[in-house]
Amino acid sequence: MKSYREEFSFNIPGRRGFVNITSMVKDCLKKSGILDGLVLVNAMHITASVFINDDESGLHQDYDEWLEKLAPHDPVSRYRHNRTGEDNGDAHLKRQIMGREVVVAITKGKLDFGPWEQIFYGEFDGRRKKRVLVKIIGD
Amino acid sequence: MKSYREEFSFNIPGRRGFVNITSMVKDCLKKSGILDGLVLVNAMHITASVFINDDESGLHQDYDEWLEKLAPHDPVSRYRHNRTGEDNGDAHLKRQIMGREVVVAITKGKLDFGPWEQIFYGEFDGRRKKRVLVKIIGD
Amino acid sequence: MKSYREEFSFNIPGRRGFVNITSMVKDCLKKSGILDGLVLVNAMHITASVFINDDESGLHQDYDEWLEKLAPHDPVSRYRHNRTGEDNGDAHLKRQIMGREVVVAITKGKLDFGPWEQIFYGEFDGRRKKRVLVKIIGD
Repeated sequence: MKSYREEFSFNIPGRRGFVNITSMVKDCLKKSGILDGLVLVNAMHITASVFINDDESGLHQDYDEWLEKLAPHDPVSRYRHNRTGEDNGDAHLKRQIMGREVVVAITKGKLDFGPWEQIFYGEFDGRRKKRVLVKIIGD
Repeated sequence: MKSYREEFSFNIPGRRGFVNITSMVKDCLKKSGILDGLVLVNAMHITASVFINDDESGLHQDYDEWLEKLAPHDPVSRYRHNRTGEDNGDAHLKRQIMGREVVVAITKGKLDFGPWEQIFYGEFDGRRKKRVLVKIIGD
Repeated sequence: MKSYREEFSFNIPGRRGFVNITSMVKDCLKKSGILDGLVLVNAMHITASVFINDDESGLHQDYDEWLEKLAPHDPVSRYRHNRTGEDNGDAHLKRQIMGREVVVAITKGKLDFGPWEQIFYGEFDGRRKKRVLVKIIGD
């Protein structure tokens, strides 16, 4: 069994944002030399997500508005978590909807994807450096 | 390390529906000859889910109504994504709640499940052919 | 490829509760002798979750209130699932938001975690014995 590990760093200028990281994951896969196995891609921070969906800017705005409705940022006093001095209580909730991680099959050296699958980093409490982990195992 | 790959195809006649695919995944496991490892089962489309829960029709209706409340299909104009000519903006949101994939342990040649766990394909934008990927790795 | 399997048992005294299981998973990893690979941690029951987030009691209260708002327990008659004689329809919905499982990378014999990541068991229908599965594969 071979394995490969790499971290990506992000510093999203706003509070929230989505970044397509598919080509970065493909680069890892190429460097790994692994042809068959699984790749795990996860947010290393608990106010961010890694998820798979469509690279369409209208959809990303829909996600942003929907998450804001399900778990509004304001008023920050609505979250007990924010009594610790944080203002990111909402981000911990949003991340549970969008998920921490994805696991993707690797077949013949490629991400074994359907026609529209793309991997995204989802930031819900940005304006600071945060990381994503890629771990590949296989042969 | 051994691996096995198979795709399932679905063409759900309505917009939404749930299909129990547990026995199909068990068949893959038998064909693979893998006794110990992990199986990934994921929707290859971004308006569908694979998830694990109970095979109880009342619960499935509860899921359907709940998802429709959290992310209503109508009016389709409420989603920016639908300005691209699609009418499935809601399906991209519903799929995030129910998830893209499951990873299940394989022990002694069986799905290592609790008493009620069953694997489902969840369709949120049907009436066309869509696929599910099964990827098994192990020994 | 090596593998390791262990179950944890929980009997949460109330209907809902969160338990930090990170050190229990670390103990499994030590016993496994696996230095590099993946660990799957999943609820074996369909009204419970395993998820990764912050060990902060205010946040856990926020999760509890938020989930209760998104999928209220009462009135139990609101869920078709409860016509089967159950009263846990809400728990099946809450578990979909929080997720069934996590997959974590293992690097140099450790859980390859960001600074605040902790693994939790989330109970949504307690007062009886329920189990969590840990499955580790790697070298």
